[in-house]
Amino acid sequence: MLVKIVITPKPEILDPQGKAVAGALKDLGYDEVSDVKVGKYIILKLSPSPGLKLEERVDEMCRRLLANINVESYTVEILEG
Amino acid sequence: MLVKIVITPKPEILDPQGKAVAGALKDLGYDEVSDVKVGKYIILKLSPSPGLKLEERVDEMCRRLLANINVESYTVEILEG
Repeated sequence: MLVKIVITPKPEILDPQGKAVAGALKDLGYDEVSDVKVGKYIILKLSPSPGLKLEERVDEMCRRLLANINVESYTVEILEG
Repeated sequence: MLVKIVITPKPEILDPQGKAVAGALKDLGYDEVSDVKVGKYIILKLSPSPGLKLEERVDEMCRRLLANINVESYTVEILEG
């Protein structure tokens, strides 16, 4: 089974990586770009253990390791496969 | 207008960041996870210039700056807004 996790900087938080990319795009002549946000896209491949709730486990992984919930939001989508 | 870009390591390429995350998840007791891929999720906010083709411009941005096309694949989705 595949689980897709998207982690993005919270809107109110400064995103230095996004700013750097926006600056680089401007330097290359892409003046139409006004803002850039850079987040993470994570695909987990897993075999759900019987008796464990998949959604809760993945939510816990996000909170404990994958996302910094002070400055990042995350969404989880469970894909078949 | 918003453009969503997802950049992922090509399947045949070693993904050291994914391996590190997989190891960390195992150390935390999430033994159900067998593989992790880590990619980037980029949101561009832009005002399309008249006379320039948005899709082509964004594709060019990916090839020139955002993705390393030797080892990464990317997908582009143009969102309204």
